[in-house]
Amino acid sequence: MDVHSGFVGVTAEQLADAHEADLKIEGEEGVHFERAWLDAEAGKVFCLSTGPSKEAVMRIHERAGHPTSEVYEISVEV
Amino acid sequence: MDVHSGFVGVTAEQLADAHEADLKIEGEEGVHFERAWLDAEAGKVFCLSTGPSKEAVMRIHERAGHPTSEVYEISVEV
Repeated sequence: MDVHSGFVGVTAEQLADAHEADLKIEGEEGVHFERAWLDAEAGKVFCLSTGPSKEAVMRIHERAGHPTSEVYEISVEV
Repeated sequence: MDVHSGFVGVTAEQLADAHEADLKIEGEEGVHFERAWLDAEAGKVFCLSTGPSKEAVMRIHERAGHPTSEVYEISVEV
């Protein structure tokens, strides 16, 4: 799970475009972005992905134009 | 989506118990906790829920013993 801040006022179309930019190149790092959730008022985006490492996720996000260093490796889910 | 901090070293069983505590009383506020993701090393828990308001989610989490003020209202998801 990664978290982006500062996305205040982002629209549904902009979120879809950003997600699409990730999907286009994610395979190069063995990453898959499953879902993303936006709170446009707080400017937060949460992305759920699978992949080999946090660094791989960070590299795809950076290359897609929306870098973040806040990536959490999920050890348990319910 | 809400975020809890300080849950370093929490186990799968503890996360399941905490989630169960939410599920037991969530109906009283019209909330439903769908999923939760834990990074036990960073001590972060992310909970995805539906409900009438952020405050309703906060009240259930508080009554279940794991309060947080960090709740984000999702406006868009992909």
